Amino acid sequence: MVRRNSLSGFLAAFFVAAISASAQISAPEPDPLARMRQAAASVQACSASEISACAQAAPKIIANALGASPLAENLRRLTDEIGGRLTGSPAMGKAADWAVAAFRDAGIDNAHTEKFTIPHTWSEGATHIQILSPSGFPVHAVSVAWSPATPPGGIEGDLVDAGDGAPEDFARMGPDARGAILLIRTDVLRSFGDLFAEDLRNPGIIERAVSAGARAILWMGTREGMLLSRHLTGLGQDGSIEKLPQAIVAREDAQRLARDLGAEQRIRVRLDLPNRIGGPAEEQNVVAEIRGRERPNEFIVLGAHLDSFDLGTGALDNGCNAALVVEAARDIHLTGLLPKRSIRFVLFSGEEEGMLGSWAYVRTHREELDRTDAAIIFDEGSGRVSGFSLGGRLDLQPEVLQQALAPLNSWGVNRFTEDAVLGTDNLDFLLE
Amino acid sequence: MVRRNSLSGFLAAFFVAAISASAQISAPEPDPLARMRQAAASVQACSASEISACAQAAPKIIANALGASPLAENLRRLTDEIGGRLTGSPAMGKAADWAVAAFRDAGIDNAHTEKFTIPHTWSEGATHIQILSPSGFPVHAVSVAWSPATPPGGIEGDLVDAGDGAPEDFARMGPDARGAILLIRTDVLRSFGDLFAEDLRNPGIIERAVSAGARAILWMGTREGMLLSRHLTGLGQDGSIEKLPQAIVAREDAQRLARDLGAEQRIRVRLDLPNRIGGPAEEQNVVAEIRGRERPNEFIVLGAHLDSFDLGTGALDNGCNAALVVEAARDIHLTGLLPKRSIRFVLFSGEEEGMLGSWAYVRTHREELDRTDAAIIFDEGSGRVSGFSLGGRLDLQPEVLQQALAPLNSWGVNRFTEDAVLGTDNLDFLLE
Repeated sequence: MVRRNSLSGFLAAFFVAAISASAQISAPEPDPLARMRQAAASVQACSASEISACAQAAPKIIANALGASPLAENLRRLTDEIGGRLTGSPAMGKAADWAVAAFRDAGIDNAHTEKFTIPHTWSEGATHIQILSPSGFPVHAVSVAWSPATPPGGIEGDLVDAGDGAPEDFARMGPDARGAILLIRTDVLRSFGDLFAEDLRNPGIIERAVSAGARAILWMGTREGMLLSRHLTGLGQDGSIEKLPQAIVAREDAQRLARDLGAEQRIRVRLDLPNRIGGPAEEQNVVAEIRGRERPNEFIVLGAHLDSFDLGTGALDNGCNAALVVEAARDIHLTGLLPKRSIRFVLFSGEEEGMLGSWAYVRTHREELDRTDAAIIFDEGSGRVSGFSLGGRLDLQPEVLQQALAPLNSWGVNRFTEDAVLGTDNLDFLLE
Repeated sequence: MVRRNSLSGFLAAFFVAAISASAQISAPEPDPLARMRQAAASVQACSASEISACAQAAPKIIANALGASPLAENLRRLTDEIGGRLTGSPAMGKAADWAVAAFRDAGIDNAHTEKFTIPHTWSEGATHIQILSPSGFPVHAVSVAWSPATPPGGIEGDLVDAGDGAPEDFARMGPDARGAILLIRTDVLRSFGDLFAEDLRNPGIIERAVSAGARAILWMGTREGMLLSRHLTGLGQDGSIEKLPQAIVAREDAQRLARDLGAEQRIRVRLDLPNRIGGPAEEQNVVAEIRGRERPNEFIVLGAHLDSFDLGTGALDNGCNAALVVEAARDIHLTGLLPKRSIRFVLFSGEEEGMLGSWAYVRTHREELDRTDAAIIFDEGSGRVSGFSLGGRLDLQPEVLQQALAPLNSWGVNRFTEDAVLGTDNLDFLLE
């Protein structure tokens, strides 16, 4: 999942129903699979309008999904063996190979990659923060993703408590911010709301830091204890490099630094971010297709991003959903039935840096978009799919609920969100 | 707190009442301080036998303890400014200076250090675990404390899943353990019981690993997620170096390695533990005394260890109790009253490596021990003192509860443990 500022004003008028499905961990319900198996044995959930096709396909697809499946092993290979896969990295190349192979194993022989260009590759060097005075302690930190590198030997500066980084904090610091390394305090992140609030807040802080002449920003980690996480912090997220060197400091260490500053200590630090920045470089989405029977030039896109940040293995964000899209292709292919329209399965790269892969896809396939009847994007965690957003197309809700999702009624995939979800690859389908 | 094997058979016959006080975080009670303030205004809690002395001293001491105090600032300096203080390290030297200064600020001018010798100093180098094949991921790990260093360049070996390290695991591995780097699986540590169970289990595992010809041990971290902790793992804990190079691997990384081994991957690793080992070296306890009025050659020892491990700042284990002992000296001194017997305030070093400081203290002061009427040791966390152990001297319970602790009745310091507590500096007072 990536975070981009709200663009909801733009969205309602677009034709494509860019659905994003939320697969979040929900409170357990009593054996939903048992109910699914009942549903699979019945065709009554289908709508009247397409009863024959639905009657054929839905129970078979559901039965395939509930039967023996390579999904878990696919996901294990992607996460445990390949692991974190930053856009443009060798690991992401392996992940694309994994995806092509997994689609082909699922019976979709036409699986292939589609190239696009990203402006920069990025990987973290040996991030190091040293407290020069007073004699300090080891500070645990990671570079912000797509942060510029510091010059060889790092940069030195006084550490200045920049509070929350609000305009009044910069007013309070005045000229002290110039040439300083700023410590920005944060709250613990506990919800999606906190995540998006952080995204809305951070770009302004960076702008103010740049204007004030600060040399770098140290963000207090928003995860409790010593857990480190990495993401982008700036606006734009078009694959460009951030405006200021920035690191995320483990919360306990950052709080200790903040307490020391509060006790009137003058703290001098050296920040070394020898990040490796390259590019422009070629990157790739993975595309596979089940060709339509009646209207092969009309498309349904089923997508998820394959890239991840690299401190973890990208299992929840978004390996599970990448493996799910492969599984959907397998389950449909296994029925031996051909859909009316073509189904395009797309695993995007570059999502975490600003949905670069889906942006490339809609540009490459622009002339098809008017014939793309739906783009269904999976992101935001694991667990069974519990709901969906229609990207502003409220008019589609009855049709989606009563027809498309009818065979899944018993699974409760009905937590409908009225708001357009803007944090993942559906956005470019809305914009184009 | 240090962990040493049970010696309960030895204890009951010793004369000294080596009390260890548990200052653990308890469920909050409604305003215990309010009740303390009531008690401070009353002398009725004193026993009849020493009513006059108690009537004078207890309310004044309690009032001092509840008034404005440098305790929090002392603790901040010890933990935030000095931080983790491994026995024999420069930080531990600063901590001893802190203690002498804090006692003197508390009015105890005779505060001084007492030297003793530790067999080895130890500090961690740049611990590094590299997965040589297949192409791996960054493994987060720390060296076990007092682990031997690996030779320059580290050691290489196949990583072998040694299960729980039980005899049957070694039987299963057979010759595969020879020359291997063993991965030992663990459970998440959730209680003191788990902590001591680990201590009882680990030495046998190390013995078996040595016998099987393994080159090193990687312990799966017992803390959840990516949190690392450090302690000693071996038996003995007399300040000697462990028998085998050992590291603790962040639980998520260790679980990933275990899953990869379970998926039949052959994993080759290089373990580099460039630990710096020195010594023998001089180390020091800090001792301060309020001289007794009637029986100056009889002693009450009030002690806590000042050293800590060094991944954290040693606030809970045991900075808070070191600061508490200083505060007790201040509170008693401030009354202007002289106790009947001398009160010896001792902050020990070397506790985490096997209670080396208290061992040195009892050897140095052996001829005084028969005139040492009590040794009260604080360890095991923060929060108000909620109970005590009498080190096997059940006969003392009525006297302690009805006389010594009577002024604190309203605070509920009465969670009496029948078992001797063996994990801290009281042990040497029991043994000598």
